[in-house]
This record gives sequence, C-alpha cells and structure tokens, in this order.
Amino acid sequence: MAETMFLYWGSGSPPCWATMLALEEKGFSGYRNKLLSFSKKEQKREDVLKLNPRGQLPTFKDGDLVINESKAICLYLENQYHDKGLQLIPDGHKEKALALQRMFEVQNLRSGPMEKIFMYLSSTPEENRDQKVLDEHYSQARNELGLWENYLKEIGDGAFIAGTNFTMADVFFFPLVAICVRLGLQIEKFPALLDYYKRLCDRPSVQASWPPHWKDEPGPKMLNAV
Amino acid sequence: MAETMFLYWGSGSPPCWATMLALEEKGFSGYRNKLLSFSKKEQKREDVLKLNPRGQLPTFKDGDLVINESKAICLYLENQYHDKGLQLIPDGHKEKALALQRMFEVQNLRSGPMEKIFMYLSSTPEENRDQKVLDEHYSQARNELGLWENYLKEIGDGAFIAGTNFTMADVFFFPLVAICVRLGLQIEKFPALLDYYKRLCDRPSVQASWPPHWKDEPGPKMLNAV
Repeated sequence: MAETMFLYWGSGSPPCWATMLALEEKGFSGYRNKLLSFSKKEQKREDVLKLNPRGQLPTFKDGDLVINESKAICLYLENQYHDKGLQLIPDGHKEKALALQRMFEVQNLRSGPMEKIFMYLSSTPEENRDQKVLDEHYSQARNELGLWENYLKEIGDGAFIAGTNFTMADVFFFPLVAICVRLGLQIEKFPALLDYYKRLCDRPSVQASWPPHWKDEPGPKMLNAV
Repeated sequence: MAETMFLYWGSGSPPCWATMLALEEKGFSGYRNKLLSFSKKEQKREDVLKLNPRGQLPTFKDGDLVINESKAICLYLENQYHDKGLQLIPDGHKEKALALQRMFEVQNLRSGPMEKIFMYLSSTPEENRDQKVLDEHYSQARNELGLWENYLKEIGDGAFIAGTNFTMADVFFFPLVAICVRLGLQIEKFPALLDYYKRLCDRPSVQASWPPHWKDEPGPKMLNAV
C-alpha cells in the first residue's frame, strides 16, 4: 500500500518526524518521499504549493487524497489502516482517552517555555540578555519537563508516555524529547525521560526516520542551562 | 450520561467554545459545568490545578477520566459516544480525511496572521506603528481567509467547512470565524464566509454555547482594516 503514498518532508521538523514515525509504525516503510530543504525554502516550490497552498511540510498524499496537517495524517493512517502495523490509538476507554490527552498535551512542551527560550536567545543579542528573564524561562521549562518525567515514573519501568505500549502520544512526544537533547538539555536530570529517550532511540521506526542533517551538524546548545 | 461530565471553561476561549459545541452536538446538553474568569485568573484555582497542573481551560472530566486538551476531549467524545447525537467524524474515506485535515488546519487561522496582528497592535503603541508592517499582516490575513472562503465556495450552497454536513472541522472553525467578526473583520468581503457565519449563528449548539460576556462587552476592533 505504501506505493499509493507520497510525503514531502523537511529534516528535523517535529510534525514531519511525527508523520514519518506513524508511517513506519503502521508498516508503510518504503513509502515514496522527497526531502526538501527549509534553508533553500524548497517547501515553497510549485509542486508543493499545488498540494499545500501555505507551502508547509509535511505535505502528504495517499492516492488522490491530500492531507497536510501532521495530526490529521497520523489519525487518518490509524483510522484508515486500523488493522495494519501497530495500533496507535488503544481500544480501551481509559487507555484511548489517555493516549489522546497526551498526544495533544505535547503542544505545551513545544510552544511553552522551550519556544520562549528559543525566541529570547534568537532575538536578544548576548550583551542585552537579562539573566532573570532567562532564569524564569528555565524554571518554567524544568516544571514542564517535570510533568512528563512524572507521567513516565507513574507508569513505571519500560514506560511509554501514555502507558505500557507505544501509542500515538509517543509519535508526537518522542521528536520533542530528541530535539531537547539535541539543543543541549541535560536529560540525565530527568532519569525517567533519559531512560525513555535511550530506549526509543533503538526503536526501528526512530532509526529509520532520524533527521539526516543531525548526523553531521551539531545543534545550538540553547537548553544546557535548563 | 451528561451527569458523568464536568467542564471548567472560560468565556470566549476558542478551545473552550469548541469543546462546548462538541458537547452540545453530541447530545450532552445540560452537562455540569463551571464558568471561570480569566481576568481573575480563576483557572489557577486549586480545584482546577488538581485536575490540570498547567491551570488551563478547558478542564474536563467524564467520570474518573480527566481530559484537558480540547481536541482530545472532542475526539474522545466522538469515539466513546459514537452513536449518540451527531456523528462528527464521517465514515467515508475521503470525507473523514477532509474533516480531519480541516479540523487541524484551523490552527493556521488562529496562530498565523491573526495572532501577528493581535500581537503587533497589543505590543506597539499607536505612535510607533509601522503601516507597512501592518499592511503586510493584513494582506496575509486576507490570503488566509481567502483559502477558507474558497473551501466553502467549492462545496457550494449550504456548505459546512468540510462538506455538506456539520463535522468536527466546524467545531473548531466556527469559533474562530465568530472571533474574527467580533474583532471587526468586515466579513461581507468574504460572501461565502458571511453566509456560513450567519447560518451557524442560528444553530442551537452555537446559541447554547455563545460566549456570555460577548453579549454585553464589545470586542476591540483589531481586524477592521483586513
């Protein structure tokens, strides 16, 4: 079935990575795809704009269907190919609610304190930075990460983020953890997160979708003081 | 079943409104709820924080289950109570993909040019505003609204945002259209959007969930130049 699919993607983009993880976990390895360069603004190419007028990645097709929002793609894959590959939304009442809650809760990790730190460091020259402002952001980032650390601890050994199995919540959570590590987060301060990160790094879907440019280029160490 | 549910909400918040629309459409009118005041920071009350450590609204319970992210709540309601009230995610392959795509695509309307205009006008004193910057934001907002206008036009008379029936996409799209109108958008420039807005204003779920403080307080006219 993978031959009906086509994905335009960018390296290191969390929504692209989530989409690729879902494709791998649903058993669509070998789907057709094209890596585009954000720095060359290739996502604004005409062939992409035809499918996605905002020129954003991921841009995805399955047959004639165009779906461009990562969460829509992943839920579509789970719905449409329910019995193929790994089931990413559990059947149980409580398990399903938790997987959905964590899947969307990930947004708080992405657009909360991490984004504030990133924006502040990118837009404020070093000599103008106010350590108090930074410390406040770092403290908020630690609180946010602490919530996720506790979720894992409560589940216990071998935890995934919404229970004892890999679910759609991990599809969206893992890329953000990996980005935090790349940006210098001292993840050993969060032992359950460290264990989770290490375990998932070995997962075939993660290895198959690891951002290629990360292998050669180190990330800016923006989170090493968190 | 509505008696198993409890919702903490704030007036005029798009995710709260979407949750309330889904509850009404799924036939849970009369669910227990508590309106909290953002201006008094009541979302940081201890009883909310116990359920939602970030102190955000909506905060929702169904029996023992706590779900706080609006999209998780709405998808949970549709999944768990599939046969109750209106079906919000269609069964058909294409219809389902489109409803999911539009549901998540709404984020572009919320966090794109509209937010830029809001941020610029809130943070820049009138005497320091650069008309060129504003014009660029206004132009981007017109482009974004133009996409949605075309979606409705392509569907034709009586269109909802993902087809000929009300779906989960409308649950998330309508509150943003209504907010644009409240903020002074001259919606008559977008005839299909105007028709959509007027039709949905008459919908019982919309009337039952209309932000109460809007009835007495006019909104700041931030979008009247779009």
